[in-house]
Amino acid sequence: MILTVTLNTALDITYRVRSLRPHTSHRVSEVTERPGGKGVNVARVLAALGHEVTVTGFAGGGTGEALRSMLAEVPGGPADALVAVSGASRRTVAVVDELTGDTTQLNEPGPQITPAEWAGFLRRYQELLPDASAVALCGSLPPGVPVGAYAGLVRAARSAGVPVLLDTSGEPLRRGVAARPDVIKPNAEELAELTGSHEPLRATQDARRRGAHAVVASLGAEGLLAVTPEGHWRAAPPARVPGNPTGAGDSAVAGLLSGLAERLPWPDRLIRATALSAATVRAPAAGEFDRAVYAELLGRVRVTGAAGAA
Amino acid sequence: MILTVTLNTALDITYRVRSLRPHTSHRVSEVTERPGGKGVNVARVLAALGHEVTVTGFAGGGTGEALRSMLAEVPGGPADALVAVSGASRRTVAVVDELTGDTTQLNEPGPQITPAEWAGFLRRYQELLPDASAVALCGSLPPGVPVGAYAGLVRAARSAGVPVLLDTSGEPLRRGVAARPDVIKPNAEELAELTGSHEPLRATQDARRRGAHAVVASLGAEGLLAVTPEGHWRAAPPARVPGNPTGAGDSAVAGLLSGLAERLPWPDRLIRATALSAATVRAPAAGEFDRAVYAELLGRVRVTGAAGAA
Repeated sequence: MILTVTLNTALDITYRVRSLRPHTSHRVSEVTERPGGKGVNVARVLAALGHEVTVTGFAGGGTGEALRSMLAEVPGGPADALVAVSGASRRTVAVVDELTGDTTQLNEPGPQITPAEWAGFLRRYQELLPDASAVALCGSLPPGVPVGAYAGLVRAARSAGVPVLLDTSGEPLRRGVAARPDVIKPNAEELAELTGSHEPLRATQDARRRGAHAVVASLGAEGLLAVTPEGHWRAAPPARVPGNPTGAGDSAVAGLLSGLAERLPWPDRLIRATALSAATVRAPAAGEFDRAVYAELLGRVRVTGAAGAA
Repeated sequence: MILTVTLNTALDITYRVRSLRPHTSHRVSEVTERPGGKGVNVARVLAALGHEVTVTGFAGGGTGEALRSMLAEVPGGPADALVAVSGASRRTVAVVDELTGDTTQLNEPGPQITPAEWAGFLRRYQELLPDASAVALCGSLPPGVPVGAYAGLVRAARSAGVPVLLDTSGEPLRRGVAARPDVIKPNAEELAELTGSHEPLRATQDARRRGAHAVVASLGAEGLLAVTPEGHWRAAPPARVPGNPTGAGDSAVAGLLSGLAERLPWPDRLIRATALSAATVRAPAAGEFDRAVYAELLGRVRVTGAAGAA
C-alpha cells in the first residue's frame, strides 16, 4: 500500500455567502464539509485511482470524529490508521463569494500534541512502514510536534527502504530536505523560501544540493519542473486550464506517488501528476478531480527535457 | 423554573486573526468555542443570577454534542432538556480583527428539522410548561420548522397560564405577535421591520396594537423603551458604556425574564435588564457579564416615565 502522513488533519468547511464584507454579519447559504489536510487529500485521489492507500497522522475531538466518519464513507477509500489524540483536529473555513467565486481562507492552528501522543505516532509509523511501497509526508505540523519531525520520518522511511516524498514548507521543509528525501514537491513560493532564489530552475537545482534526490516544482499554470538524478523535464497541460486551483498541488503529489509506487519512468510520472492536477482545477468541487478530463489529458500533456545527469 | 426555548442552538466559534482581508488566507491565532443561540445565552445569564433554568429546543450532530457538553460543564448552569435531532446544530463563526477589534460574523442556517422532530419538540414543550414560572422564545427558526411556530408556542404558554416573552425577528415575529405574547423585546431594526415605522415610540405603540401586551424596545446606547399595560418608561445607564455589544440584547431578555418570574414592578425589571445589558457590554468576553459592573449599575440606572395606561 501507499502510506500518506497528515500530522495536522482538518475538517475542511466551505461556506457560500453572497459577498464577504469585513465587519458585517453574513447568512451562510450553503455549508459543505470534507475530511482534509494535504495527506488526506492525496490519499483520496490515490484511492480514486485504484491504489491501496493508508492514512496516518493525528485526529481528535468532535472534528476528528467527523472527518474520520466521512473518510470511512468513501467507497474504496483510504484505510484509517490515524492516531487518536486528546485535542480536537483543526477546522479550515473557506468562505466563497457567490458573486465572484473568490475564496477567503481561515485556518485553525491545530491541536496541541503531547510528547506521549507524538511517541504513539512514531510507533504507529514504524509499524506501517514495512507494508508501504511509498510514503508521502504532507502539510503543516500541529503545535507540540518537534520542528525536525519530518527529518526523522524521512530517515525512518529510508532505513526501511521505502521511497519517501515530502510536501511541506518553512522550517519543517528545510530540516526535512537535509534528511535526503527521494522527492520534494514545493510550489514556487515554498521553493523561493527554501533557497532564497525566485528563479525556478536555479532554485530547484539548489534544493537538490540541500539534500533532495529529486525536486518537482509546481509552477501553477506553467506546470511542473522536475530535476532528478535521471534527468530534468518540464510538463504542462496543452492549454491554460480555467477553474479552482484548490487541491491541485495535492493531486500532483498523488500523481507522483502513484508513478513512484509503480516505478514508472519520470516522464510518465510527470504526465500523470500534470493531468491529475489540471483535472482537479477543472472539477466543480474543490479538491475533487474530473475523471474524463484526467483521461483525456493523459494523452495530451506535453513533456520536454532529457534523461541524463541534471 | 424559567424555561428558555432555542430552536436554532449554535456552537459559537470565535477566531482571532491579525486583520481579515477578503480573498486571502489567514492563520487563526486563537480559537474559542461556547454554547450559543439566543435562548441558551439568556439561560446562562439567568443561571448566573441564581435562577433555576431549563433550556429546550433542538441539538444534533457533533456540534450539538459539543455545545451540550459545554453547557453541562457550567457550574450551577441550565438544565438540558434539548431534543436530539438527526441534523447537526449550526455553527456561528465570529472573526475578530486583532488590530481593530472589529468582528465579521458568519452564521450557518441550521439543520433541517423533520416533521417528526418538530412533533417531538412540541411534546417536550408541553411537558415542561407546567413547571415554568416564565418562558422565553428566542432567535431564528431552523429550516423545516413552520414559520408560525412561535405563534403556536405563545398560545400554548398562555393556555398553561405561563407568562411568555418572544425575542425573534421577521415573519416569525410578525406571526408570533398576533398570538398575544406578554412581552416582546425587539431592537430598533426588528421593530421598524415589524411596524414600518422608524420612530421608536410610535413603532412600540403600533407593536402593542398588533398583539403584544408589553413591548420593550432595546435602542442600543439609548437604553430601553417600555410600553406596557401598567405604564410606559425609558431606562438607560448613567453614562455611555464602551465595550462589545455582543449578547447585550440576550442579557436584557434575561433581566426582563428574571423580573417577570419574580413579579417585580416594571421599573425594577427595566433596571435589572439595563444593568445586565450594560454589564455585558463591559465584560471582556463576548456574551458574559461583569458582576461588579452589574451590582454597581443596579443602583445607578435612570428610569423615567409613569405608571398608567400607555
